[in-house]
Amino acid sequence: MGKLVIVGTIAFDAIETPFGKTDKILGGAATFIGLSASTFEVDATAVSIVGDDFPQAYLDLLSNRNINLDGVEIVKGGKTFFWSGRYHNDMNSRDTLVTELNTLANFNPVVPENYKDAEVVMLGNLHPLVQASVLDQMTTKPKLVILDTMNFWMDSALEDLHNTIKRVDVITINDEEARQLTGEYSLVVAARKIHDMGPKYVVIKKGEHGALLFHNDEVFYAPALPLEEVFDPTGAGDTFAGGFAGYIAKTGDTSFENMKKAVIYGSTLASFCVEKFGTERMLNLSSAEIHKRLLQFKELTQFEIELQ
Amino acid sequence: MGKLVIVGTIAFDAIETPFGKTDKILGGAATFIGLSASTFEVDATAVSIVGDDFPQAYLDLLSNRNINLDGVEIVKGGKTFFWSGRYHNDMNSRDTLVTELNTLANFNPVVPENYKDAEVVMLGNLHPLVQASVLDQMTTKPKLVILDTMNFWMDSALEDLHNTIKRVDVITINDEEARQLTGEYSLVVAARKIHDMGPKYVVIKKGEHGALLFHNDEVFYAPALPLEEVFDPTGAGDTFAGGFAGYIAKTGDTSFENMKKAVIYGSTLASFCVEKFGTERMLNLSSAEIHKRLLQFKELTQFEIELQ
Repeated sequence: MGKLVIVGTIAFDAIETPFGKTDKILGGAATFIGLSASTFEVDATAVSIVGDDFPQAYLDLLSNRNINLDGVEIVKGGKTFFWSGRYHNDMNSRDTLVTELNTLANFNPVVPENYKDAEVVMLGNLHPLVQASVLDQMTTKPKLVILDTMNFWMDSALEDLHNTIKRVDVITINDEEARQLTGEYSLVVAARKIHDMGPKYVVIKKGEHGALLFHNDEVFYAPALPLEEVFDPTGAGDTFAGGFAGYIAKTGDTSFENMKKAVIYGSTLASFCVEKFGTERMLNLSSAEIHKRLLQFKELTQFEIELQ
Repeated sequence: MGKLVIVGTIAFDAIETPFGKTDKILGGAATFIGLSASTFEVDATAVSIVGDDFPQAYLDLLSNRNINLDGVEIVKGGKTFFWSGRYHNDMNSRDTLVTELNTLANFNPVVPENYKDAEVVMLGNLHPLVQASVLDQMTTKPKLVILDTMNFWMDSALEDLHNTIKRVDVITINDEEARQLTGEYSLVVAARKIHDMGPKYVVIKKGEHGALLFHNDEVFYAPALPLEEVFDPTGAGDTFAGGFAGYIAKTGDTSFENMKKAVIYGSTLASFCVEKFGTERMLNLSSAEIHKRLLQFKELTQFEIELQ
């Protein structure tokens, strides 16, 4: 059972979509990554920070899914990171209403001793120096380090971001961010430039249009399952990354062929995430449902063609 | 060898892209559809209209590809339809600079006698009443009627468009147009509504994001090949439609499985079209190149996955 280190936020989210709004509910990158990765048999630990306002019941939801929480610091008298956002009608864009860093402002991640030899490290979206400090703590070189990031760090900490990107094997990034990071409109050219920055594998997430996996001159395109309704996109990218990381940790196979499968698993899990508010769907997801949707993915994309 | 009727414009285009600009060159929906369809062994006729300013050399380019031109009216003293457009840097949007209908304003399509029993009819983007008049001339019911249209007719001739849509088997439409036609953002819901308007098959073209084929509850997603550079998108949609129609005409098989292949052929041919200005790439395309790219398409999307 492969070990997986997940670093990222554990948070309160308050979400408004055209379908309704929530109070403060369970959210955060490490939460979504963890819930998604734990659909595989992996030995995962979440490295994060919360305040003592964070309900034990939420922590129990994670530990009940065999996510080790030894690396989650609970700050006495501190308040948990809080994000609030409102999605527009097209569900592809959103306004951030509130960002309260709270305890996250002083987050010094500590990887539990027992996980410093983990095979896979998943660096969720955080300040690139915080991501790097996790890598510094690993005592054996991980088989695969995956980094997720966003435009905020390109605007505010580009040099640090470049230094961290240098050290990772896989980057997951959305299409607009790939264009911002490289100044290239063509995703093929953008992926090549990111490749030159360090990562051997570049995953470009295109939301409802699916995801591209680049490795040298090879490319794989996993379309997203066309959905009748996207209820709440929050966490979809992290759920994708968690599925990707979890599948690699479980199989221990970092070949391009296996990464294709990891991308399909990631897309499949993300397609569930958006069906309900926050983590609700991921917390009520059976392996039978996952299997059924994997078959749908296969039907969606597979074809036989004779060359003439 | 299946018979294919193509109706659409044969035109002059003048194109500006970030890579350069052209004088008046060969363009038009029937041109691109014809060049694409004629990569298959089909007996195709183009039904269109030009002025006597249209060079015989351009007509020869089409007839040399075994496209019958008996249905192309040459108006003495008339001028050929002319379109000019400028693409923005992202290549996804464009401004129309000039539209001179000229002879197209009085186009009454006449299907050559020998093609009134054609198995496949491809109605290129034109006024829906003009498209309908082609169907009126068919003496035997075609196996498959495919209609391409655009937002212009939704704005200016919606009732006529609805009446023509009722009579076709397949509609090809882009994502924004599908949303406009149905008032639905979700493409799954939009496809279902278009299905209810008549067409049993709905193809939604998403440009660089590929194409979706819907039929009842089945869906197939053909991603677009990620390209290093899109040089000129003009004619890509028509080239897609021409590949689709040509493959169906050649095989005579209108099953969903075969339509998947038709979509893949259409995407493959469209991926060439955008590499050069106008028809240039389609006029210099070998079957070896098409085969190679079909294999790339297969590599791009195919995966093996074991259920666990």
